[in-house]
Amino acid sequence: MTGQRSDARRNHTRILAVAEAEVAAHGAQASLEQIARVAGVGSATVRRHFPTREALLEAVFKQRVRALCDRAHALCAEHDSRSALEEWLRELLAYALAARGLADVLSYEPLQDEAAQDSCAASIGAAGAALLRRAIDDRTVRTDITMDDLLTVIVGIALATENHTDPAMRADRALRLVVAGLGANDT
Amino acid sequence: MTGQRSDARRNHTRILAVAEAEVAAHGAQASLEQIARVAGVGSATVRRHFPTREALLEAVFKQRVRALCDRAHALCAEHDSRSALEEWLRELLAYALAARGLADVLSYEPLQDEAAQDSCAASIGAAGAALLRRAIDDRTVRTDITMDDLLTVIVGIALATENHTDPAMRADRALRLVVAGLGANDT
Repeated sequence: MTGQRSDARRNHTRILAVAEAEVAAHGAQASLEQIARVAGVGSATVRRHFPTREALLEAVFKQRVRALCDRAHALCAEHDSRSALEEWLRELLAYALAARGLADVLSYEPLQDEAAQDSCAASIGAAGAALLRRAIDDRTVRTDITMDDLLTVIVGIALATENHTDPAMRADRALRLVVAGLGANDT
Repeated sequence: MTGQRSDARRNHTRILAVAEAEVAAHGAQASLEQIARVAGVGSATVRRHFPTREALLEAVFKQRVRALCDRAHALCAEHDSRSALEEWLRELLAYALAARGLADVLSYEPLQDEAAQDSCAASIGAAGAALLRRAIDDRTVRTDITMDDLLTVIVGIALATENHTDPAMRADRALRLVVAGLGANDT
């Protein structure tokens, strides 16, 4: 039993490491068969550890998402709540452009079950909502804006530009349009 | 020769009809092998008619894109240039949400060759630019906004919401944020 369990743990780690490399190279559509092949396991083993493509992608991006959440918490301590929100949106967009597949993961609709509470999208949404709430309380952002709205446009900008030769330039221009829509006070 | 040409024409029509159905069902990632199989031709024949996936998708969406361009031309005759622009952006987003794969096609970077002049993205861009120019000339939209910026966010919103159970609601909220960013005059 112990041997089986440590085999399973080793497989889990190896599949995840291979998946990270494959997703970095090919994005969210990375081939699950190729991941199994490179990891030296069968497709059934991949499915046992990660029942769906979504589950595998969630695991691949867990650490990066945690870093973004930590960053949101840190920015909540900044005096200027509006600048703090804008800075975090810029960093979220930069992450989504740099890490192929992350924008796809964040575009999934959170499932309505307990496991979904710490999905990538739910974690990012909760972390960003704290920043948004501060800015709204300080009257530096319109009251009718939700973090869902902001996630939709930020993730969308990343998805719409990822096939371009200079995604960062185009995404940055589009982000300025979004930031302008946050409210009159954009000093 | 005539027989070969009319065979080729028939194949072209049949592949395109099958591709429309497959893309409607599966989006831009529709299987080219499946399209060949259903059309009753070999993969090589599909590639001869449509050398790349992009070329096939361009053909699939040509008519819908033409309808959107016609709509832009018609809206250029409206008195209120700002409302006309907003209306067209709403229709573009609704089209992109309804026609799976269209947002993907519009997210491709236009190639720098002659054929690209009438690509879907280039046609939509040119048609929308006329509406945007009128609104900027009427000082109802900020002067630093380009149609590329608007296409990026509209196409992005479609891509970010297409896997949701209620894309229209979420997309509509995100669009309001973009419209608010167009400029102060949003009466």
